[in-house]
Amino acid sequence: MKKILVTGARGFLGRYCIPLLLKEGLEIHSLSRHAASVEKGIIFHTVDLFERDTLRLKLQEIRPHYLLHCAWLTTPGIFWNHPDNLSWLKATLELLQAFGEAGGERALGIGSCAEYDWSMGGICREKATPLLPATVYGQSKLAAAQVFSAFSKLYGFSAAWGRLFFPYGIGEPADKFISAIIRGVRRREAVECSHGRQVRDFMYIEDVAEAIVTLLMSSATGAYNVASGQSFSLRDIVGEITSKIGGEALIKFGSKAEQAGEPQTLIADVGALFEEISWRPRIDLPSGIGRMIEVLCSADAVCAIPTRV
Amino acid sequence: MKKILVTGARGFLGRYCIPLLLKEGLEIHSLSRHAASVEKGIIFHTVDLFERDTLRLKLQEIRPHYLLHCAWLTTPGIFWNHPDNLSWLKATLELLQAFGEAGGERALGIGSCAEYDWSMGGICREKATPLLPATVYGQSKLAAAQVFSAFSKLYGFSAAWGRLFFPYGIGEPADKFISAIIRGVRRREAVECSHGRQVRDFMYIEDVAEAIVTLLMSSATGAYNVASGQSFSLRDIVGEITSKIGGEALIKFGSKAEQAGEPQTLIADVGALFEEISWRPRIDLPSGIGRMIEVLCSADAVCAIPTRV
Repeated sequence: MKKILVTGARGFLGRYCIPLLLKEGLEIHSLSRHAASVEKGIIFHTVDLFERDTLRLKLQEIRPHYLLHCAWLTTPGIFWNHPDNLSWLKATLELLQAFGEAGGERALGIGSCAEYDWSMGGICREKATPLLPATVYGQSKLAAAQVFSAFSKLYGFSAAWGRLFFPYGIGEPADKFISAIIRGVRRREAVECSHGRQVRDFMYIEDVAEAIVTLLMSSATGAYNVASGQSFSLRDIVGEITSKIGGEALIKFGSKAEQAGEPQTLIADVGALFEEISWRPRIDLPSGIGRMIEVLCSADAVCAIPTRV
Repeated sequence: MKKILVTGARGFLGRYCIPLLLKEGLEIHSLSRHAASVEKGIIFHTVDLFERDTLRLKLQEIRPHYLLHCAWLTTPGIFWNHPDNLSWLKATLELLQAFGEAGGERALGIGSCAEYDWSMGGICREKATPLLPATVYGQSKLAAAQVFSAFSKLYGFSAAWGRLFFPYGIGEPADKFISAIIRGVRRREAVECSHGRQVRDFMYIEDVAEAIVTLLMSSATGAYNVASGQSFSLRDIVGEITSKIGGEALIKFGSKAEQAGEPQTLIADVGALFEEISWRPRIDLPSGIGRMIEVLCSADAVCAIPTRV
């Protein structure tokens, strides 16, 4: 039975990957600062990812074939320019070295559309759009991508990098765009928005997890955009929500300023993911939003948006 | 008097930058694993760049305004895919953090044309050529560039990154291309070469140092190609040497294989350096090669190529 080490196994993306990895027949290991435990099919080891020596010893003990590195600073609002991004870069460096030393065979890291030059606007292409991140988060992720490639070359393991765009779904932090809109409308509160004409590639988190696990189980190397290939304006998304639960009048477009440096259009070329990896999303925007509404608007959830599924 | 910390002050590039920095009126500090000393205008402190805690304390003590980070693994032949590149990345991360914490104002790091995607061929442009390094060296340098940008944003200092192409000159390692040709011809030995049709941007090291110091003293931020804007085939360069000291018949073009992954053409767009920084090289290829020949072919230097000036 092959082993996989999943970091961030309890995070938004990690949680959705676990059932798919179990289906692949993998023995799942993860790291936690808390006591060792076995939970929902995951063997948790007591290791602080920021403590290099214990991390290396633990990887020598586990000897994972696969690595899926989801853990990173993701706190909405603060992660863009927080110094902890550099601590995560350092931890990623130690983790990849430990994985290589322990004989690992295949690693996948989670990147971001924030690695691209947003001033170019439009569609991000892996091999053509300049990499010129404007945020500490994007810079640290781009550096981490290089760390994956470098250790892959040094230790001879195979490595890929999945650049996420706009994942959404049940379990996302309560102040993410779609959750915040649904919650506001449900509570009949006024919802402040920017102009809403920004165009983005949103993809349901179950699809994101499936794409990531498919990419991991393939032999593809290098960076791949992980996105739906569909573009939606934020107004489209709000319209999809209000068409289901009403509240159009509550949405105050233009009452909030746009974020500085935010591009008009930020979407993905998914040619490589679709053609080379032969993967397609299953859950379209109306279905994904429908699922979120079902959970967020259930009788007992009015004021209690779940942050864990 | 403003202070500058120069890493790699005794290296090929560092040595040429020192007189220019003294001319700028800067007090020059450097780090060394050996005993503290003052040498050729440089105040050396006993600090191992790989020991984070002593490094931070020392920077708190020096409190440099400027940082010029030249130190890196550069041993010819082995540096392309050596694991120490990652140690240098880690050291760079600690150095930039220590510089920011110590109130540093302006930093410049040394990058490389190896950060670009060489499979694209042709001319490398800062804002258009994809960054897709094929070597551990290039990957680590690209990651280090991100570390510069990220800490610059976090601590509010200004940072630039100079991507070098093919510096050459007196004091370069004896097995670099131009030194090896001159030495072989001088000794009347057969000199093995590849086909020699590769086109490169070679720039004399005094010009490289001047460009780097000019960029450092400017307020420009981000990545700049640091190159001459002139293209030469390796055959042109050999021709320039043999036109001066003879030995055409000793050069065996095609007797050595090309290096794997080596692009046909690897030259720089220098528009940004020339226009934004208003800098131009002074020493053309015949003059630069002339200077090298003068030193390498002096009576007592036949078998003793200096590796230190």
